[in-house]
Amino acid sequence: MSADRTIAPTGSYDLIAIGSGPAGQRAAVQAAKLGKRVAIVERAGVVGGASTNTGTLPSKTLRAAIVELTGMALGVYRTAYRVKEQITIDDLLWRTKQVMEQERDAIHDQLRRNRVEILTGTAAFADPHTLAITTGATTYRATSERFVIAVGTTPARPDGVDFDDGTVLDSDGILRLRSVPRTLTVVGGGVIGLEYASMAAALGTKVTLVEKRPEILDFVDGEIVEALQYSLRGLGVAFRLGEEVAAVQRRAAGGTLTLLRSGKQIPSDVVLYAAGRQGATSALDLQAAGLEADARGRIAVDADYRTAQPHIFAAGDVIGFPSLAATSMEQGRLATLAAFGERTGSMGALLPYGIYTIPEISFVGESERALTASAVPYVVGIARYRELSRGEIAGDRTGVLKLLVHGETRAVLGIHIFGTAATELIHIGQTVMAAGLTLDYLVDAVFNVPTFSDAYKVAALDAANRLNEIGARSSTAAA
Amino acid sequence: MSADRTIAPTGSYDLIAIGSGPAGQRAAVQAAKLGKRVAIVERAGVVGGASTNTGTLPSKTLRAAIVELTGMALGVYRTAYRVKEQITIDDLLWRTKQVMEQERDAIHDQLRRNRVEILTGTAAFADPHTLAITTGATTYRATSERFVIAVGTTPARPDGVDFDDGTVLDSDGILRLRSVPRTLTVVGGGVIGLEYASMAAALGTKVTLVEKRPEILDFVDGEIVEALQYSLRGLGVAFRLGEEVAAVQRRAAGGTLTLLRSGKQIPSDVVLYAAGRQGATSALDLQAAGLEADARGRIAVDADYRTAQPHIFAAGDVIGFPSLAATSMEQGRLATLAAFGERTGSMGALLPYGIYTIPEISFVGESERALTASAVPYVVGIARYRELSRGEIAGDRTGVLKLLVHGETRAVLGIHIFGTAATELIHIGQTVMAAGLTLDYLVDAVFNVPTFSDAYKVAALDAANRLNEIGARSSTAAA
Repeated sequence: MSADRTIAPTGSYDLIAIGSGPAGQRAAVQAAKLGKRVAIVERAGVVGGASTNTGTLPSKTLRAAIVELTGMALGVYRTAYRVKEQITIDDLLWRTKQVMEQERDAIHDQLRRNRVEILTGTAAFADPHTLAITTGATTYRATSERFVIAVGTTPARPDGVDFDDGTVLDSDGILRLRSVPRTLTVVGGGVIGLEYASMAAALGTKVTLVEKRPEILDFVDGEIVEALQYSLRGLGVAFRLGEEVAAVQRRAAGGTLTLLRSGKQIPSDVVLYAAGRQGATSALDLQAAGLEADARGRIAVDADYRTAQPHIFAAGDVIGFPSLAATSMEQGRLATLAAFGERTGSMGALLPYGIYTIPEISFVGESERALTASAVPYVVGIARYRELSRGEIAGDRTGVLKLLVHGETRAVLGIHIFGTAATELIHIGQTVMAAGLTLDYLVDAVFNVPTFSDAYKVAALDAANRLNEIGARSSTAAA
Repeated sequence: MSADRTIAPTGSYDLIAIGSGPAGQRAAVQAAKLGKRVAIVERAGVVGGASTNTGTLPSKTLRAAIVELTGMALGVYRTAYRVKEQITIDDLLWRTKQVMEQERDAIHDQLRRNRVEILTGTAAFADPHTLAITTGATTYRATSERFVIAVGTTPARPDGVDFDDGTVLDSDGILRLRSVPRTLTVVGGGVIGLEYASMAAALGTKVTLVEKRPEILDFVDGEIVEALQYSLRGLGVAFRLGEEVAAVQRRAAGGTLTLLRSGKQIPSDVVLYAAGRQGATSALDLQAAGLEADARGRIAVDADYRTAQPHIFAAGDVIGFPSLAATSMEQGRLATLAAFGERTGSMGALLPYGIYTIPEISFVGESERALTASAVPYVVGIARYRELSRGEIAGDRTGVLKLLVHGETRAVLGIHIFGTAATELIHIGQTVMAAGLTLDYLVDAVFNVPTFSDAYKVAALDAANRLNEIGARSSTAAA
């Protein structure tokens, strides 16, 4: 980076995005596309935020490497072949580093192409239109008409958990592990906890997962959570649900001990504490902008991603659920559009959710719970991967695709997938939903054979048969 | 199989499907769904046709096993790790057998559930409404109002090619190979030839591919063919295009010699002769039904899959291009609908093409060639996998997705993909096209990150930028 980009003089902008993760990037680029003068503030001196540097991207690279190297992608060969009997952390991480570097380059290129200035340093509001940006011993100011706060989150580090950088780690620290642990305790049954629990279990680590709520991933379809839990149990994961952690201790002899409030003690080589992340707002001096964060550092926004200050918006993980890269990008884009009075409103597009457990989960649209609560009549069409030629070929016998279909209009209301390629396949159904096509499109469509996509046709036929049965019975009852 | 199913008494049906591959199955099941009395004739005593027993399914299983076992799914680890240094044929084939058995069971179940009778034996027309079916020493008759001929194809075996079952093989015989050859000559640059050439090359076999036309896969987008050829060359495949085979000889010392008309000689351990398949109509006695096949054993049909005899239809490989399982299924279904006067016409749905080379190819809709010929203005949007996070993660640096977009309406006219998961991803764009959505849907859609599906967004943005430029220049020119 050349000096004129890193140490900007006092500048004045139409919009400053604070944070260069997915939300901040997209907010800045969208403003640039509107022809505005735009800057992005990045504290770390390394663009990309948690998504590129500690979260999404490295964990997905790690996951891909683990799935391949353990032969899990082809379930049936699992025991017969395993690429390296002893997979080392170095095997896994060298690729991760490459991918991260490439991604940072790509982001830099994109910002440069769009003429977004990069302001390096830690930003704090001096007043509602001014940031004081500190880098090393230097502080400089930048003013802007509008702001999008996209500072993301940092892992929560509660008292009583004895973090170090070797055996008691938070989710940002897991990439610093020096060896694959024999035993691992994961605290937190959210997305991050379950993704890392899956990876460790796939590597043969004995995992115990502790979650204080009675269930994991409570925003995911119940049957799919059940399938995931069943599958992870098969890989040796023990679940301690409805259990709270009182403390995590390091032991003199090495290793750790996790103490639960119920009195149980769980020893393990390593603890990953992945229960909750805090909005990274502490350094922002929100008060100077007339704003405040909640107890978890999060910023409240309306449907337009506008904070209590009309010219300040927030997007991405710092506003809370769902904290997924794809959603954060869209939030950033919409926040900028709202900031400049462009057409927007709530998120128009259908949002897919992708969870990179092993196997992966993806869903879009309504859940059975929500449809039942709002008394929408629906039927479920199910396809099991083991009924598909492609599922047999891949040896994926646990995968499942669920279609929720309106009982009268035959509209597709929701899609829930667990299994190989779920995060890709979801977009087929998402497009069906976005276009307002019915079940019958999927019944009639010609798909490549053999593919996992065929699950849509199998599930659609299943749903159509159920609808026919209901039709037949209603007619009988009416007659 | 019990005796009453295999040796049927003289029966009379509304429809008989001759052949139990994808076209025959689908034709029979569709007739059953219309409440008709249906039978299916299967010569081999093993349902599923070439798709299940020698073609689609076993070759795709083999392919999946090879991609996994060689570590090709994760390009970057290719040299560092390889599951088994010496992958044996047994390693590859045990899985193939399992998958084939499972598929045959599934087809049997489906036919049974739909009350389709299975008539075992070799069928020949006795008159336009009667089949004589011979099994062993027994011949019995079955009559039907309508027929769907779906007998498929068998490999062409020209004189001068010295087939045995060990070193000079046709495409049905390749599964009988007893070891992975060191060198292989593939004759025929069609789908089958290229799929097996890919697999062999991935296993480290030195492959020479001979094709008499000047190009391979002439129905596929030129850029994608180029990418495939480049990629296969990288795996050591030598192409001899525009070269005709004069003879294939076995050598006394073992191995083979392929003689080209140009005088060149190609020695190799094994030859796969995959140039052309013949319609399997020779035993059918078509003349007795008032029909005839062409020189390649194929049956001519109209847009409704009706032959010259109004009550006899034909579907699947026996009618020629494209000879893909998914298309054959749809042809079988449409043939039956036409046979019973149900709504049909030409194939209404958009047909995807899937080619399981390594990497795989899939496309749907129009080609650049056809659009140019019919003077439709279009722009191309390109996404290269190496620009995608997911592509980086997978180490797929050769993949590419091409969108063809109408220059005025912004409608998506065609999609051409080369790379990981192409045969799955195509269905996203297929749905966009089927729904009549424009480019802008793809620009605005929120997709999971990181996925290969993201290629659609990248390509759509690329196309949108081109359209903007054209718009800007047109305005300038007009001003």
